[in-house]
Amino acid sequence: MIKVGIIGGSGYTGGELLRLLSLHPGAEAVCITSRKLEGTPVGDVHTHLRGISSLKFESPTISEIARRCDFVFTAVPHGTAMDWVPGLLDEGAKVVDLSADYRLPLDEFEKTYKMKHKAFREAVFGMPELHPEVRGAAFVANPGCYPTGASLAAAPLVEAGLAERVIFDSKSGISGAGIAPSPTSHYPNLAENVVGYKLTTHRHTAEIRQELSRLSPGVKVSFTPHVVPAIRGILTTAHVLVKDEFAGKIPDKTEISKIYQEFYAIQNMNLMMGPGETEGLWFPGGAP
Amino acid sequence: MIKVGIIGGSGYTGGELLRLLSLHPGAEAVCITSRKLEGTPVGDVHTHLRGISSLKFESPTISEIARRCDFVFTAVPHGTAMDWVPGLLDEGAKVVDLSADYRLPLDEFEKTYKMKHKAFREAVFGMPELHPEVRGAAFVANPGCYPTGASLAAAPLVEAGLAERVIFDSKSGISGAGIAPSPTSHYPNLAENVVGYKLTTHRHTAEIRQELSRLSPGVKVSFTPHVVPAIRGILTTAHVLVKDEFAGKIPDKTEISKIYQEFYAIQNMNLMMGPGETEGLWFPGGAP
Amino acid sequence: MIKVGIIGGSGYTGGELLRLLSLHPGAEAVCITSRKLEGTPVGDVHTHLRGISSLKFESPTISEIARRCDFVFTAVPHGTAMDWVPGLLDEGAKVVDLSADYRLPLDEFEKTYKMKHKAFREAVFGMPELHPEVRGAAFVANPGCYPTGASLAAAPLVEAGLAERVIFDSKSGISGAGIAPSPTSHYPNLAENVVGYKLTTHRHTAEIRQELSRLSPGVKVSFTPHVVPAIRGILTTAHVLVKDEFAGKIPDKTEISKIYQEFYAIQNMNLMMGPGETEGLWFPGGAP
Amino acid sequence: MIKVGIIGGSGYTGGELLRLLSLHPGAEAVCITSRKLEGTPVGDVHTHLRGISSLKFESPTISEIARRCDFVFTAVPHGTAMDWVPGLLDEGAKVVDLSADYRLPLDEFEKTYKMKHKAFREAVFGMPELHPEVRGAAFVANPGCYPTGASLAAAPLVEAGLAERVIFDSKSGISGAGIAPSPTSHYPNLAENVVGYKLTTHRHTAEIRQELSRLSPGVKVSFTPHVVPAIRGILTTAHVLVKDEFAGKIPDKTEISKIYQEFYAIQNMNLMMGPGETEGLWFPGGAP
Repeated sequence: MIKVGIIGGSGYTGGELLRLLSLHPGAEAVCITSRKLEGTPVGDVHTHLRGISSLKFESPTISEIARRCDFVFTAVPHGTAMDWVPGLLDEGAKVVDLSADYRLPLDEFEKTYKMKHKAFREAVFGMPELHPEVRGAAFVANPGCYPTGASLAAAPLVEAGLAERVIFDSKSGISGAGIAPSPTSHYPNLAENVVGYKLTTHRHTAEIRQELSRLSPGVKVSFTPHVVPAIRGILTTAHVLVKDEFAGKIPDKTEISKIYQEFYAIQNMNLMMGPGETEGLWFPGGAP
Repeated sequence: MIKVGIIGGSGYTGGELLRLLSLHPGAEAVCITSRKLEGTPVGDVHTHLRGISSLKFESPTISEIARRCDFVFTAVPHGTAMDWVPGLLDEGAKVVDLSADYRLPLDEFEKTYKMKHKAFREAVFGMPELHPEVRGAAFVANPGCYPTGASLAAAPLVEAGLAERVIFDSKSGISGAGIAPSPTSHYPNLAENVVGYKLTTHRHTAEIRQELSRLSPGVKVSFTPHVVPAIRGILTTAHVLVKDEFAGKIPDKTEISKIYQEFYAIQNMNLMMGPGETEGLWFPGGAP
Repeated sequence: MIKVGIIGGSGYTGGELLRLLSLHPGAEAVCITSRKLEGTPVGDVHTHLRGISSLKFESPTISEIARRCDFVFTAVPHGTAMDWVPGLLDEGAKVVDLSADYRLPLDEFEKTYKMKHKAFREAVFGMPELHPEVRGAAFVANPGCYPTGASLAAAPLVEAGLAERVIFDSKSGISGAGIAPSPTSHYPNLAENVVGYKLTTHRHTAEIRQELSRLSPGVKVSFTPHVVPAIRGILTTAHVLVKDEFAGKIPDKTEISKIYQEFYAIQNMNLMMGPGETEGLWFPGGAP
Repeated sequence: MIKVGIIGGSGYTGGELLRLLSLHPGAEAVCITSRKLEGTPVGDVHTHLRGISSLKFESPTISEIARRCDFVFTAVPHGTAMDWVPGLLDEGAKVVDLSADYRLPLDEFEKTYKMKHKAFREAVFGMPELHPEVRGAAFVANPGCYPTGASLAAAPLVEAGLAERVIFDSKSGISGAGIAPSPTSHYPNLAENVVGYKLTTHRHTAEIRQELSRLSPGVKVSFTPHVVPAIRGILTTAHVLVKDEFAGKIPDKTEISKIYQEFYAIQNMNLMMGPGETEGLWFPGGAP
């Protein structure tokens, strides 16, 4: 049984990790931290886990966590994860950082997030379809919400060299904005509405550009996020502008479908050498 | 042109009053107050009124308001309206109080709201269908949101002496909870949900009981509110328990329909003696 | 591995059964029927099951189904289930009927559903908390959606003899109205709305009354359903009117809580004698 | 009083026209047609107009309508409006066609809508900001829902010669899909969802291209529509790709704002020479 810790567990991300771990046959959450909520049962905050998780929020030291856990998720804001990650790694824990602190190269991070990095380390970018080295990695930087769908949606066409530019127009549910009420998440403001924000300046653009540039140096990337009246999920429309040189020979639907199938088949083979990719994660979504 | 002032105009109620006044051919908003927002254009707060109202929030004295306005709406929380109303009345303004401070008799108010009243006055209860003396009144206490629909829904059957007890089960949009974001109004908490609250203890029960008891002393009243995923509006289901003595002779649909038509026709005649009941208020709702 | 068949699998109920069975470690869906969709892959209709279920809709005879399946769910409309159930039972299959055909005694069924019953059989009412004989039964009539929550919400107080009358006011998501688009489920009609229907005449009232009368003969039951802008779930508010004889000695919150805990603890013990009540069904709900 | 007729009044468009006309001080709806609903009071179909409009659906001849009405709206599907418009014009009525039959030049219409035009006439494109000749026109083709917002959003930048290409990504409420229930408008399918459709093939693209090409010949236009869980309204994100020649000298926010203000001020002056542009249409939207 893999013993798992969650640093910063009072938000939606912490609650969802706990929920997924409660379903996992080979892993067990043994520690969840929150300075403010120390001593509070997690079911008081994540009420959907009442009777499912008996953990209480704790406020242990890095060493304590590393001693008790094989594997740690850092679910704290960017700028804070860097206070935890190097210590955890040095004490031997495997770490998945859910913040933005280790997704970009040092200089790109400091330019994008407008802050000095206190403790940089190299991480594997946690997108297994594009980074099969995730398997077995000791330290993974989990991609942002928007970059995951956006990059995977365009990657096959970009890698095929077709794309001059990709314009991503994303429509997100509001849970990505977090557990704290705000004017944006206020029901009368969001219901019956669609709200664009950070129209050309969202920081996730850097991650998308990084991943797609690896597949086709120089590809141009734009990204515009919106929130829609929905709780979960993101629909990203990728407007792919094809290079002039393909004028008149743009692949048809069947060919495009083949490009996608081949791209993701290859990727999957790499991953499927090892055991149980989806263990503890596989379940069919509900409908309606 | 009637000059109108709004005390406490930074919330949804203030914004809606301004909107309705902008449509009114015989009235004009000349003053809207907010201590915190003094100097701010109302369009910065009520963005739907940008370009429609050029007022700025002010923080005038009671005397100033009374001098500039013929008519004042107090749209402040209960416990605060009582700081304004008596002064405004004494200086000659007509007042509609939207808070709960003057809806109930003194003792009933103090028991229900668990506070001492600082400055009680008699008001006309602002439900013109049951209180035709609203016409021409100098001081009107506007009913609460739930009591309006609930009382009017049951009044004809209660007045007809049929009702032993009425159990009101109300489903409200969230705008009644106000402009300030809260966990209840947080989109992920309200969407796809229905939430009951103050199950047997909501303070509006006293207003409903007061109005229905006038029509049939001793009628029993229960009230349970819920919020549903909607912005505006309340649907109230009135479960009317008929007195035992009517067993076997409960009126059928046609008779009940007649009871309602006669009740509201009579009421309307009283009101329609004077001019323009709906002036500036009449407009068909949109659909879809 | 228990082999399971689903009669009438083109609706939401059929899709949800397939989904749950895909998660069940000890059962396997081997047959799903639909005359109209014969030959169509289920993933074409229940698109969330694409890649999860490889079944195709079939149109076999009763004998064929009984031969291939140990266990059959009938998910067809009331009036149609009776064409299937007796044959399946006679051929040795265990059956759970999801329609209304076997939930009520014969005369009560015919009066409530205004039709002759073609093939009545005695079934166990499928509410294990009130009917522990569900364990091991060969034929179970699954309760309606509203009666499940409503009966269980009031059962402890009714059994304790406190309730003179229970008025159920239910707020349902729209998926209960089925997979076929209709004016009621048309988004512009339901969003921002609450709609009451069959105010005093919904046929589920008979089921609720049947179950609560078993616990306290003579208890009075009213039921009013509504749809709200939500997909899944029902919130039922049970307004419990306490008998006059309890005036002045109504149990307080703590005592009421104890009544509920004891009622459901006892029921659970009966059930927990055997193995694996929740096998294949247990998973924590998502939030947000 | 201008006498107005509505051809094809059983849908959302007909209901909304009637509602707006009920508010208009200088116009009056005198006739609304529907073959299928002949004799039915409009309030039975457009229930929000019960007690507001006393019209009944009729099925008159073109001559009758032209005799009774000064002004006619054709609110029938494309391909059907052409059965009405020439006759109405020939008999002297002013006509606004809400269908797509007269928005495009003949050849462009036939190519886009894949049908022969039975009775082409020249119409003024009903976008007064770009076509001031709307004032006084006898026949106006009202633009489609998407083209209105899309064209106006990009027009100033396109006219300024900055735009190489504009990619419109639209998010629409579902009322645009009409009054008839369908799988797309089925609440369980749309709530908590965003659905793209006709990704590169929506016929409104031709209208947008037509209007923007008038301002800058050769500008490239793409358009992708989506429906979101909302009743009314469209939010269109216009991704404007600036011509290479402007590299390094793209206008900043202030300059762009000035381009928009000047573009729409000019346009408005043209219109404001005459009386009462907004008569009967002006009212502040509600919030929340």
